[in-house]
Amino acid sequence: MKRAEQKTETRRLILEVAKRHFEARGFVDTNIREVAREAGVATGTVLLHFRDKEDLLHAALFEDLEREIEEALGTVPEGTLEERLAHLTRRMFGFYADRPALSRTLLKESLLASPPWAERFAAQVAKVHQRITALADEAAREGELASDASTALLGVAYFSFYYFALIAWVQGGHPDPAALVGRLMRQHLDGLRPAPAPRTRSPQRPTQRKSP
Amino acid sequence: MKRAEQKTETRRLILEVAKRHFEARGFVDTNIREVAREAGVATGTVLLHFRDKEDLLHAALFEDLEREIEEALGTVPEGTLEERLAHLTRRMFGFYADRPALSRTLLKESLLASPPWAERFAAQVAKVHQRITALADEAAREGELASDASTALLGVAYFSFYYFALIAWVQGGHPDPAALVGRLMRQHLDGLRPAPAPRTRSPQRPTQRKSP
Repeated sequence: MKRAEQKTETRRLILEVAKRHFEARGFVDTNIREVAREAGVATGTVLLHFRDKEDLLHAALFEDLEREIEEALGTVPEGTLEERLAHLTRRMFGFYADRPALSRTLLKESLLASPPWAERFAAQVAKVHQRITALADEAAREGELASDASTALLGVAYFSFYYFALIAWVQGGHPDPAALVGRLMRQHLDGLRPAPAPRTRSPQRPTQRKSP
Repeated sequence: MKRAEQKTETRRLILEVAKRHFEARGFVDTNIREVAREAGVATGTVLLHFRDKEDLLHAALFEDLEREIEEALGTVPEGTLEERLAHLTRRMFGFYADRPALSRTLLKESLLASPPWAERFAAQVAKVHQRITALADEAAREGELASDASTALLGVAYFSFYYFALIAWVQGGHPDPAALVGRLMRQHLDGLRPAPAPRTRSPQRPTQRKSP
C-alpha cells in the first residue's frame, strides 16, 4: 500500500471504531485512548487525524450523513413530488434509525455546532434544499403544482416537517417519523381551503379586531 | 410580610438576578454565589429554592415562557385563522427577541431537557397545540377551512414552522422569523395545487418506479 492509501485506510479504521464507541457508550464515555487501542494505532495517530474528540465525532457523523444524502438524492424515483420527497424522507430516517444514539447527538450538534462544522452542516442543508426546490419546479412545470407556487418556500416547509419529526423521534420516540413527514407534506401540498372557494386572500368572515 | 410571602418574594428576586446573569454572561459563566450576593441572600438560600444551576435556569426560562404563552393565548384577536396564528407568532418571537442569549439556551434545553423539565415543556407544547387545533376547528366551522381538514395536523404544521424559524433565528440570525412562519403558514393554508384541478390524490403524470 502506498503511504497516502495507508493514511486513508488508518483514518477510515479509526472512524469506524469511533462510531461504534459513540453509538454504544455515548459521547461522554467514549475515550480516545480506547478507540486508538481497538483500532490498533497509537493515541497520537488518532490525534494526528482528528484534533480532539469533538472533531472525531463530527467527522464520524458528517461523512456518513454526506454519503447517505448523496445516495438518497441519487436514487430519487420517477413519480409525483409527494412520492419523490417520501423517498428522501424514508432514506434519511432509515439512516437515523440505524444509529439512534448518534442521531440524537447529531441533532444537537447540527443545531448548535461551531465552525467549521456549522458551515458544513449549513452547506449540506442548502444543497438538499436546492435539490428539493428543483424537484418542485419540475412538478410545477408538469402541472402538478400551481405555476405561481413558491417552490423555494415549499422546500423550507419540507425541512420544517423533517426537523420537527426528527425532534419528535429523538425526544419521545415517535414510532414513525417518516410517516409524520409524509402526512404533513400531503396536507401542505393538498391545501386546506374548501374545494369550491376561489383562490383568494380575502377572509370569508369579516375581520373584527378588538380595539386595544 | 408573612413568612410565605417573604419566601415567594425571595424566590422572585433570585430569579430576576439569575435571568440577568444568564442573559449577559451565558449559562457557563453564571455563578450561583454571585447571583446570591447580588440578590442579597446567602448562597444556601438560593440552593434552598433551586437544586442547582440547571434548575435555576429552567425556572428562569419556564416561568417567563409560561406567562408569555398565557398572555398570547389570552389576547387572540377576532379574524381569520391566519391572522390569529400570526398574533401568537409575533408575541412569542417578540419574547425571544427580548432575551436572545436565553432563547438560544431555551431552544437547546427544550429540545434536550431531562425530567422534570422535559415533561413540563411537553405539557406546554401540548396545551398550545390544543388551542391551535381549537382555533382551526372554529375556522373550519366558519367555512374558512375545508370541513374534512385535519386541524390537529394543521397544528403540528404550525409547530414545525415555528421551531424551524426559531432555529433559523438562533443559528444564523434570520432577520424576521415571525414573518417566515407567516409565509409558510399562508402557503400551507392556501395549498399549492393548481386552482382548476379537482381535489384528488391521483397523480397527473404516470408513476414510473424504477425497478430496484
